[in-house]
Amino acid sequence: MHFDSDYMNLCHPLILKRMAEVSQQSFSGYGNDSLSQSAQEQICRLCQSPEAKIFFLAGGTQTNMVVIDALLRSFEGVLAADCAHIAIHESGAIEFTGHKVLPLNHNNGKITARQIDDYVTSYYNDPNWEHIVEPGMVYITHPTEYGTLYSLNELEEISNVCHRHNIPLYLDGARLGYGLAALNTDVTLPDIARLCDAFYIGGTKCGAIYGEAVVFSNPQKANRFFSHIKRHGALLAKGWGASLQFDTLMRHFDDPSRYANQTKDTLYFHICRHAINQAMRIREALLQKGYTLFLDSPTNQQFINVSLQKAKELGNHITYGQWEPPKDNRITIRLATSWATKTEDVDQLINLL
Amino acid sequence: MHFDSDYMNLCHPLILKRMAEVSQQSFSGYGNDSLSQSAQEQICRLCQSPEAKIFFLAGGTQTNMVVIDALLRSFEGVLAADCAHIAIHESGAIEFTGHKVLPLNHNNGKITARQIDDYVTSYYNDPNWEHIVEPGMVYITHPTEYGTLYSLNELEEISNVCHRHNIPLYLDGARLGYGLAALNTDVTLPDIARLCDAFYIGGTKCGAIYGEAVVFSNPQKANRFFSHIKRHGALLAKGWGASLQFDTLMRHFDDPSRYANQTKDTLYFHICRHAINQAMRIREALLQKGYTLFLDSPTNQQFINVSLQKAKELGNHITYGQWEPPKDNRITIRLATSWATKTEDVDQLINLL
Amino acid sequence: MHFDSDYMNLCHPLILKRMAEVSQQSFSGYGNDSLSQSAQEQICRLCQSPEAKIFFLAGGTQTNMVVIDALLRSFEGVLAADCAHIAIHESGAIEFTGHKVLPLNHNNGKITARQIDDYVTSYYNDPNWEHIVEPGMVYITHPTEYGTLYSLNELEEISNVCHRHNIPLYLDGARLGYGLAALNTDVTLPDIARLCDAFYIGGTKCGAIYGEAVVFSNPQKANRFFSHIKRHGALLAKGWGASLQFDTLMRHFDDPSRYANQTKDTLYFHICRHAINQAMRIREALLQKGYTLFLDSPTNQQFINVSLQKAKELGNHITYGQWEPPKDNRITIRLATSWATKTEDVDQLINLL
Amino acid sequence: MHFDSDYMNLCHPLILKRMAEVSQQSFSGYGNDSLSQSAQEQICRLCQSPEAKIFFLAGGTQTNMVVIDALLRSFEGVLAADCAHIAIHESGAIEFTGHKVLPLNHNNGKITARQIDDYVTSYYNDPNWEHIVEPGMVYITHPTEYGTLYSLNELEEISNVCHRHNIPLYLDGARLGYGLAALNTDVTLPDIARLCDAFYIGGTKCGAIYGEAVVFSNPQKANRFFSHIKRHGALLAKGWGASLQFDTLMRHFDDPSRYANQTKDTLYFHICRHAINQAMRIREALLQKGYTLFLDSPTNQQFINVSLQKAKELGNHITYGQWEPPKDNRITIRLATSWATKTEDVDQLINLL
Repeated sequence: MHFDSDYMNLCHPLILKRMAEVSQQSFSGYGNDSLSQSAQEQICRLCQSPEAKIFFLAGGTQTNMVVIDALLRSFEGVLAADCAHIAIHESGAIEFTGHKVLPLNHNNGKITARQIDDYVTSYYNDPNWEHIVEPGMVYITHPTEYGTLYSLNELEEISNVCHRHNIPLYLDGARLGYGLAALNTDVTLPDIARLCDAFYIGGTKCGAIYGEAVVFSNPQKANRFFSHIKRHGALLAKGWGASLQFDTLMRHFDDPSRYANQTKDTLYFHICRHAINQAMRIREALLQKGYTLFLDSPTNQQFINVSLQKAKELGNHITYGQWEPPKDNRITIRLATSWATKTEDVDQLINLL
Repeated sequence: MHFDSDYMNLCHPLILKRMAEVSQQSFSGYGNDSLSQSAQEQICRLCQSPEAKIFFLAGGTQTNMVVIDALLRSFEGVLAADCAHIAIHESGAIEFTGHKVLPLNHNNGKITARQIDDYVTSYYNDPNWEHIVEPGMVYITHPTEYGTLYSLNELEEISNVCHRHNIPLYLDGARLGYGLAALNTDVTLPDIARLCDAFYIGGTKCGAIYGEAVVFSNPQKANRFFSHIKRHGALLAKGWGASLQFDTLMRHFDDPSRYANQTKDTLYFHICRHAINQAMRIREALLQKGYTLFLDSPTNQQFINVSLQKAKELGNHITYGQWEPPKDNRITIRLATSWATKTEDVDQLINLL
Repeated sequence: MHFDSDYMNLCHPLILKRMAEVSQQSFSGYGNDSLSQSAQEQICRLCQSPEAKIFFLAGGTQTNMVVIDALLRSFEGVLAADCAHIAIHESGAIEFTGHKVLPLNHNNGKITARQIDDYVTSYYNDPNWEHIVEPGMVYITHPTEYGTLYSLNELEEISNVCHRHNIPLYLDGARLGYGLAALNTDVTLPDIARLCDAFYIGGTKCGAIYGEAVVFSNPQKANRFFSHIKRHGALLAKGWGASLQFDTLMRHFDDPSRYANQTKDTLYFHICRHAINQAMRIREALLQKGYTLFLDSPTNQQFINVSLQKAKELGNHITYGQWEPPKDNRITIRLATSWATKTEDVDQLINLL
Repeated sequence: MHFDSDYMNLCHPLILKRMAEVSQQSFSGYGNDSLSQSAQEQICRLCQSPEAKIFFLAGGTQTNMVVIDALLRSFEGVLAADCAHIAIHESGAIEFTGHKVLPLNHNNGKITARQIDDYVTSYYNDPNWEHIVEPGMVYITHPTEYGTLYSLNELEEISNVCHRHNIPLYLDGARLGYGLAALNTDVTLPDIARLCDAFYIGGTKCGAIYGEAVVFSNPQKANRFFSHIKRHGALLAKGWGASLQFDTLMRHFDDPSRYANQTKDTLYFHICRHAINQAMRIREALLQKGYTLFLDSPTNQQFINVSLQKAKELGNHITYGQWEPPKDNRITIRLATSWATKTEDVDQLINLL
């Protein structure tokens, strides 16, 4: 039983079915095809953003580096939580493009409008500002690396402060499906499209073999994005391989031919909601059995702080993520569910806890 | 009927079958999985290169930029034919990594050991050599952008001159299958592994949805390649998505469980040979009907020079690639077959010619 | 006696005199000082370009890389003669900034408006243009690497074609003084300012210890140039060290306090004209004595094709530049004069010829 | 009276004298000249490092970016204090070369061997290390940005831990003269050469017009450094312009022809000691008059925390550096002396305090 991450299973069966259906057809390369167009239309409709520009890339790190490099002027940096993926786990891919990541202290993975405002205001008040990297955009993750979510109010405040300072807001939605499908969130896909200049809808962790859908809800920011993709070596020759997966995920799950306007009707939401349900069962069991939650996550990643002894016992039966190095004989571990998690595996996990 | 390129169909049905088989299983991320290990073993065996290091990336431009950036020191450039993909059609992706492409005049897409030797010798004889980009590696394509092939003797000479000058030889095998399956080639996969320091076996154009297998037959050159991949944003979270495709393509085609030592036994060779057979049928018809071949290609790309009138007529029935801009009322076009080309489509094409 | 290059002597004595005068004064750093302001005003006046923005950098390669990187969008390249300094002798410094140099065949160091027009037009007509580096600016040298000069008419045509295609024109004036002081040129500094978006007035080769003055006669192109300089590590802490040299060179040579509106009145012109006079003496002697000029240069660099025997003889008495490697027992060499060349050395050289 | 920085005066008069002496001579370009050789020999001797390789560059940011880029492999980052120049005031010049700056919390500008050890050890213990930028070198400043100094013992510990982990140690000596000339320091130039793999001796802030001398006391680390300089556009055509300044500064100050083995005999030490003496006079006066030192600095930069009212009063008579933004009606300011500070200006400053 595997609970170490949410990218351990290939893809939802409907995607393979769809692939089989189109495998006899020929398509033009580089995203100039009917499947890409269809997937783009679905996403525009679900985002209530008819003017949005949509592009499909292979993976998350790549998406972050291409979008950030495209949105920034060469002498600008990107503001992000100090725990953000781009600040830590992407091996300097952002710096490879020549840009500095400007870290802000995170609170359970999140940053605030106030922090952004303070940073940018201080920057321009600094007599030496021209000698310091200029903050040129804001990067947030939703859900965060800690599984937490921004509230609609928090997102609106961040969006306001960004636009007041005239810097774009970009949201990394590697796990966006698990954020949208969380039980008590008040943030919808159209909210995200309205509040961010650009974001991506994660495929790799939410049912696809590979693929992330970049959405420029502010279409002016998409200017020459094709050239940026190409120059980063990120253009997929068979663009439709990625877009058909989104075309499948973004349709109504029990009747793929019916166009849906509500994310909740989509296969994407449906399978991510399953992951949330399983995660909530684990969370409840943890609380009942007296475990110490490392923090309160409403999404598919649950973090607990356990004794090394307990961690070792669990390790005999399941795989999990080691989140922080052991300290004082205790360790923080991550239990992740996904669209593919089996209910019976969660049953067994609960018994083991 | 589509003859414009060889990346217009998703993938061979056996790949989708294999995907369905593993879709219930969980795998570790980032290439640490049993499918990647199996595919690596297959490729080592077929290359007769037990020590080779194998990595799987998503696409060709990406593969070129990561490998070239990894093999070069920061102040070095890469020698390549002036018509090479990296010199023209990759939108400056190599320059994005900070390296210059040093062009050599091509002859039907190929360069010679003599040209390389002359360039490197002149370089070190130039009193200003330290002010000029140093040639740090050689890049060749096989088949070339013009569909032509190196002979074993030519490859051996190029390899010798590279190693005499102590610079690595890298072969871009985006269409390698069509090269190996050509009718009169004397170059085998073990030859390529023996003569090149690194090369890649193209998947995207030869039966896979996506994926290129980088082979460091000189394993020392693979030092820290994982870090290079990661930093370029090119690491696939679900590495097994690409490797299972190679694991399928590199097995014996009618009995996937049997390990084969001969490329000729593999699904990869089998489906590429089909493309060659269809291309040779087209070539013969062209010659019979008095067309002017732009050059003599033994692989899946056939180039002809036709009147604009004829080109327009063909365009009513088939799609083709426009190779060079029209001149003097004539135009050079490309007819490409692939593993997916239907025999009956070629029948019809021949009737149209 | 040294005739190998024009950067073998420190600087004109008036510069050292000026340095001594200001060495007791304190100045603000990073170009915010009265000397920089004065030098900028002088240059604006001489260029008849009151709105121009002027910056002082240390050397030529650095200037080229910062200006080119600032003028181009990240996915664009720079059109240049294939013999241009940026294409050959700058060790990939342009590629280091991520940009490709797009070479055009040179004719005695020059390129034509027609070549630029053809390249750009073909580019946008190419169905694959988005896969190819976009031409984003034009770089020319004046004088060229071969000592030749553009005529006013040629410059106007190049400027027109650039602006018609909406790409900036940048002129590398490492030896600009020797171009302006040539005997029969019809190109003046105000012409260059009017026709180019940006250019630099070379100091290092024309009387200064170090320093090049970048002129954005199109001031919009100077947007955020300070940040570009800083990020390239090219900002001089003591900016006035470079600007006082230009402030000295750009004043009337026999009365440094009098502002001059004509380049011809300046110390810069005066000392460069001396180099031209000496070069013309050499040229005449060469013609009289039956030497084969490699090409006809009106500036301070003279190229001749001599037997290896003759070259060796000369080498016993003078130093010269080896321009092309020996071939068929003959070799092309460069004899360069400079602002510091002594008349009596030229006398002796003429005797030796 | 100017106390805002230590780079407000052109250069020591002996440098201009030396320039005048050589201005009639011709020298080869790019550092291949007798003055550069002489300066290199002087520095090797003073460092007691006969095998050291020495290079002369124009400025500090440039030196940092070229050295760091040369010492790191492409996927590595540089450990530095979070207040370090490269982490803040160099506008992303390090990131421009593709490398991440990995910040450590500073203590009065310094970092410790323990911090480095902990960081590197944790890094390799992290199961995700391959996804995180690898620490590839350590950067320290001496004196630090806060004017503080490492003790010999601290430097030895840092050197040991670096070499135990097999990563090079690089010391930024922009103000090295003021560190060597401090009154109670136990660190000498040979110590620095012995303990660091590379460092630079600052010229711009210590008596030169421009110029920093990079010393690779570990000569293997200098491999191909010329090519790195060139590619960064940092090669000075007239290399001797910078090296003659070091040749002057590094000689015995009252008899420039006598070679000295002790830094203390050099003009460099002599003029920096003057700055220290003046700074200590200011420091004593501050303490006597009851000012609050922001921290205890033994070098030419003194930091005090004063009321805004007092700062305004001082501002009527002198210039100073604003170090931190005002807070609670108080502000931290910097008073910097230099080799050029006049004793009578310090007298007056003391009266004003």
